[in-house]
Amino acid sequence: MTTTPARPAAGISGSNPAAVLHAVHDVRIEDRSVPQPAPHEVLVEIGAVGICGSDVHYYEHGRIGDFVLTSPMVIGHESAGRVVGVGEDVDPGRVGELVALEPGIPCKACEQCRQGRYNLCPDVQFFATPPVDGSIARFVTLDAAFAHPAPENLDAEQAAMAEPVSVGVWACRKAGVSVGDRVLITGAGPVGLFAAQAARAFGARSVTLTDLNPHRLAVADDLGFQTVPGGAELEAEYDVLFECSGAAPAFAAGVRALARAGRAVVVGMGAETLPLEVFALQGRELTISGVFRYANCYPAALELISREAVDVRLVITHRFGLEQTEEALTLAGRDPQALKAVVLPGS
Amino acid sequence: MTTTPARPAAGISGSNPAAVLHAVHDVRIEDRSVPQPAPHEVLVEIGAVGICGSDVHYYEHGRIGDFVLTSPMVIGHESAGRVVGVGEDVDPGRVGELVALEPGIPCKACEQCRQGRYNLCPDVQFFATPPVDGSIARFVTLDAAFAHPAPENLDAEQAAMAEPVSVGVWACRKAGVSVGDRVLITGAGPVGLFAAQAARAFGARSVTLTDLNPHRLAVADDLGFQTVPGGAELEAEYDVLFECSGAAPAFAAGVRALARAGRAVVVGMGAETLPLEVFALQGRELTISGVFRYANCYPAALELISREAVDVRLVITHRFGLEQTEEALTLAGRDPQALKAVVLPGS
Amino acid sequence: MTTTPARPAAGISGSNPAAVLHAVHDVRIEDRSVPQPAPHEVLVEIGAVGICGSDVHYYEHGRIGDFVLTSPMVIGHESAGRVVGVGEDVDPGRVGELVALEPGIPCKACEQCRQGRYNLCPDVQFFATPPVDGSIARFVTLDAAFAHPAPENLDAEQAAMAEPVSVGVWACRKAGVSVGDRVLITGAGPVGLFAAQAARAFGARSVTLTDLNPHRLAVADDLGFQTVPGGAELEAEYDVLFECSGAAPAFAAGVRALARAGRAVVVGMGAETLPLEVFALQGRELTISGVFRYANCYPAALELISREAVDVRLVITHRFGLEQTEEALTLAGRDPQALKAVVLPGS
Amino acid sequence: MTTTPARPAAGISGSNPAAVLHAVHDVRIEDRSVPQPAPHEVLVEIGAVGICGSDVHYYEHGRIGDFVLTSPMVIGHESAGRVVGVGEDVDPGRVGELVALEPGIPCKACEQCRQGRYNLCPDVQFFATPPVDGSIARFVTLDAAFAHPAPENLDAEQAAMAEPVSVGVWACRKAGVSVGDRVLITGAGPVGLFAAQAARAFGARSVTLTDLNPHRLAVADDLGFQTVPGGAELEAEYDVLFECSGAAPAFAAGVRALARAGRAVVVGMGAETLPLEVFALQGRELTISGVFRYANCYPAALELISREAVDVRLVITHRFGLEQTEEALTLAGRDPQALKAVVLPGS
Repeated sequence: MTTTPARPAAGISGSNPAAVLHAVHDVRIEDRSVPQPAPHEVLVEIGAVGICGSDVHYYEHGRIGDFVLTSPMVIGHESAGRVVGVGEDVDPGRVGELVALEPGIPCKACEQCRQGRYNLCPDVQFFATPPVDGSIARFVTLDAAFAHPAPENLDAEQAAMAEPVSVGVWACRKAGVSVGDRVLITGAGPVGLFAAQAARAFGARSVTLTDLNPHRLAVADDLGFQTVPGGAELEAEYDVLFECSGAAPAFAAGVRALARAGRAVVVGMGAETLPLEVFALQGRELTISGVFRYANCYPAALELISREAVDVRLVITHRFGLEQTEEALTLAGRDPQALKAVVLPGS
Repeated sequence: MTTTPARPAAGISGSNPAAVLHAVHDVRIEDRSVPQPAPHEVLVEIGAVGICGSDVHYYEHGRIGDFVLTSPMVIGHESAGRVVGVGEDVDPGRVGELVALEPGIPCKACEQCRQGRYNLCPDVQFFATPPVDGSIARFVTLDAAFAHPAPENLDAEQAAMAEPVSVGVWACRKAGVSVGDRVLITGAGPVGLFAAQAARAFGARSVTLTDLNPHRLAVADDLGFQTVPGGAELEAEYDVLFECSGAAPAFAAGVRALARAGRAVVVGMGAETLPLEVFALQGRELTISGVFRYANCYPAALELISREAVDVRLVITHRFGLEQTEEALTLAGRDPQALKAVVLPGS
Repeated sequence: MTTTPARPAAGISGSNPAAVLHAVHDVRIEDRSVPQPAPHEVLVEIGAVGICGSDVHYYEHGRIGDFVLTSPMVIGHESAGRVVGVGEDVDPGRVGELVALEPGIPCKACEQCRQGRYNLCPDVQFFATPPVDGSIARFVTLDAAFAHPAPENLDAEQAAMAEPVSVGVWACRKAGVSVGDRVLITGAGPVGLFAAQAARAFGARSVTLTDLNPHRLAVADDLGFQTVPGGAELEAEYDVLFECSGAAPAFAAGVRALARAGRAVVVGMGAETLPLEVFALQGRELTISGVFRYANCYPAALELISREAVDVRLVITHRFGLEQTEEALTLAGRDPQALKAVVLPGS
Repeated sequence: MTTTPARPAAGISGSNPAAVLHAVHDVRIEDRSVPQPAPHEVLVEIGAVGICGSDVHYYEHGRIGDFVLTSPMVIGHESAGRVVGVGEDVDPGRVGELVALEPGIPCKACEQCRQGRYNLCPDVQFFATPPVDGSIARFVTLDAAFAHPAPENLDAEQAAMAEPVSVGVWACRKAGVSVGDRVLITGAGPVGLFAAQAARAFGARSVTLTDLNPHRLAVADDLGFQTVPGGAELEAEYDVLFECSGAAPAFAAGVRALARAGRAVVVGMGAETLPLEVFALQGRELTISGVFRYANCYPAALELISREAVDVRLVITHRFGLEQTEEALTLAGRDPQALKAVVLPGS
């Protein structure tokens, strides 16, 4: 194997503004140095970064479970941009590519990685999970194998949505969604809406969403899905449940509505403990799975967005410049009609 | 297709004593008429019937969930015996066979049956589930396809154990137990002990049982398994959990001890609701399944007993005549060292 | 379980014309008696029957493999019609339903049936497979569980196509076609064109068809698929191959074009032996499966037709009255542009 | 992540004799320099290396398929030994460990690697596959993640057998061998004998071997398996076939003996093309898979050897010093009773 020298990114200026979370309610725009791509890495000029509930949670609480913010950290992890430089052993022809950045880089050597379950790697380095810096910045480096080329018809904000769409693709794979399945999704936020579209692309016979927020149900309706107001009786039987609300009662109601041999996937975070009714679990031989991020989903997610099987435009409701990152983080609390906010560092 | 005439069972006397549950704590030995095998059925002279926790539950409470005893019902469903007559369209050569009686006869036509999930058939007729009569009797008829020929080296009480062993086989199949798996079983009663032996036969790397009852752990130890006293810290990681105790804390502790990508199967009944910790379920991408009886497991169960991969002798601790059925039903409450009681109608 | 009496089909006339194959090139329209639905059966007035290659093969050769025509047999097995009477134990409310007739009735009791693989039942009774009569007739009886209700927006000829569409659905399930898969189909006849549409409905990233017949490729193109002239070099890599041509060279070329971990399904009949290149099979760890009809596919097939994920109109090129059945059987030999012929007994 | 410095292997002498294949029938024992473990590597003092058919093939023909010997190459790839030094970032506590050396190091970054199919990595570096040096040498370096700790009760020659045992484990996993399966193995050489023992450990109901060589059948018999002389009629039905002979007629006969829904795995190399009978493939819905080495099997293989579920002693028939490597390579041609030869470099 011959070695390809790193290709310096011509004309990369010294300025690398980034949105840095210092503490609860304390985000600052700071100038960081432009990183150099190590061997097997690319340097990316970020075009768009979606704001995820976990970003908001760090902003509001400074921690998620055992992950605690103890030093300043760049936030954001749903990102896409252009390759502007490559490290050693990376094809220089990649400069210019629009790429979606898969945010978790595993060790590649442990048992989980060798088994193909790299999302469960205990040493994964994930954007904006303390202490790893995230991607709301002008420039970011990433393992070249995790910088996925976007199809030509996509722009950066569409490509950035490959992250939450991958969550939906992964839920579909865990549940084995296919032709014939009736899918119920509790929670019609961005994740629920992307998962619903993924389920349709996997061939689901029907997709039904529930939510307490009528605006979200209206968006689900616009996307062509059946809707049931949150808390209303679920009369049909479903083969698959994606719990995307984080609310224990939604999970309980969804499980109760599952048909024999039904499969539930717990996607949403929120409740610490969910109640599992043994009579339903056993009598109908249900299967309940949890998902942690995703593995091997980015190419499929990009393809679904590219052929418009997943419409991201209806879900992206707000756009912000990098300087307005804090506004993006506080949007959800201010605007009940908000779905996905995107930060556009280059705008 | 030509029709084979029914073969009358020569010399079948008119006496058919059976153990009939009339109400809570009211079991009577009554003489029933000898049933005639319908087309596709066999007539079996019962040799042995194991007592299951569900039999005891009906005896003590008169109901299990939605199944309520409203009229007298023969109890028992873990049974084996000799074919003594066949109905139309059944090979008369089967007379004389020792068979294990699979106790649930599905409708064979609904979607669940057509999919091979006949245990989930909504119209299944299951021995000793109200209002269907069970098998603690001298003579019983059964669908010939569910009367499984026992290997030659088995006797009736061994063959009768195909029922609880099938529960273990089914749990192994649900969890996909195979070479390399470390299996934890919470609850070392008959079901746990059979499931443990099944797991070993499926290739498990190690099998560990927990129980609060030291005698049961001693039996597990005699069978060559690792044991941990119930409530003690589980320090290892396990790939598979079989919850066989029906106790919510055992489930919670077992789930906590599962490794990444671990699978849990809820076998035991008892707790109405189990607590599911979201952080573990998601962070390690666990899968939790419920089992309801079993499907397509009897031939495998019989084979495992036949080649002594499953030792049923160490688990059968007490034997009773048909007249002593009530004694068999109350044994568990009297003797903490009791494991499986068997009623031998012919003795 | 109470018994529902049979509902006589009011006004069913004594005339039941049927297309009966007596010998090679000898089809006669004969009047058969109107059958009475047995318990668990429905009586159907046939609306449409598609002509399958196997019908043509019996007409031309009098046999397929071990199945030999030894006495006159009604032909046809891709059928749909209205329920006009029900046997005992069938809901009389079904009278009036448009149903697609699944043509193979298994024994429901053997090991294959119990496992859910009822298509492999050694005692299956399949329409128009000697000596079982088929369905080109005015009236036919069928097991009620295999008379699948068609969605309301379908007519009989669309519903009849559930049979060949089920072949496509089954191929997709065998191969596990899902989002991300690149599917290659060798042979763009009716089965190939239905399988292609099924693959798209299962989420395939791309579907490519090859055929030597340019007209068939034009239809594939009209349906939105990629096409490659038969015999041309296959440059891409594919995850899945459906061999639908029956030609050994097509299979060989298709297997050669499979990517690592690729899956091939042999759907087409024709070649007796296919050459399997060990270097490709091992070096890329390919999997090759054969399919025999289908199991549990009719509801999904009907749903795909109903929501126009599968367009049957472009594939049905010719329609005939029952009297013209022989013309329908000889069509393929006369008209290279012919795809699927349908016999409409009621027209 | 802190960096652990490399631990120099104290007292490693400058002498590193190795068995180097220069050309057909030209093996020379040469002194190579002792390699230094790179970061993430271990330095291993080899204790035992099994001779594989592929080693013999390179010795006899100088090539296997597209892999051609164009410059001198150390041969051998079934190896085990003691860790005597570690590179940077490897736990120095590993010095002293007996390890089995998994011989193929994948790129860890490509799609195949990320999916967990690292054996299909197009850039895998595999011992003794030109131009990569093998392991018949005193010292070898290896990626630490692929140096698998052997259980304490194993010695080097037992641990070295983890390689061919992994082939058997992988075949079992591909075929999904489990409790209830009747397994047929055509070819009772070392791979067949190891695969047979693996199948038994996976729970197979029965394992039957065929071979033309009566001595090999006698060994199979000693190991407790059923045997059928090669070429004799196979009267039983089997659920699983492992073709381990490389002979096309054996494959054809084995496939013919498969039961409905049977699975065949092509393990043996030899025939370039295998004949696939369509009638059997389709009528019984068979599945045929090829295997290429293995992935994620070493820990399971070592565990099976450790608990004597796989007996390697009966299969290892000859032992040689490093200087006698050529004798080991020519053994099979001289002695029809030979099974596995092992080279012991330290002896």
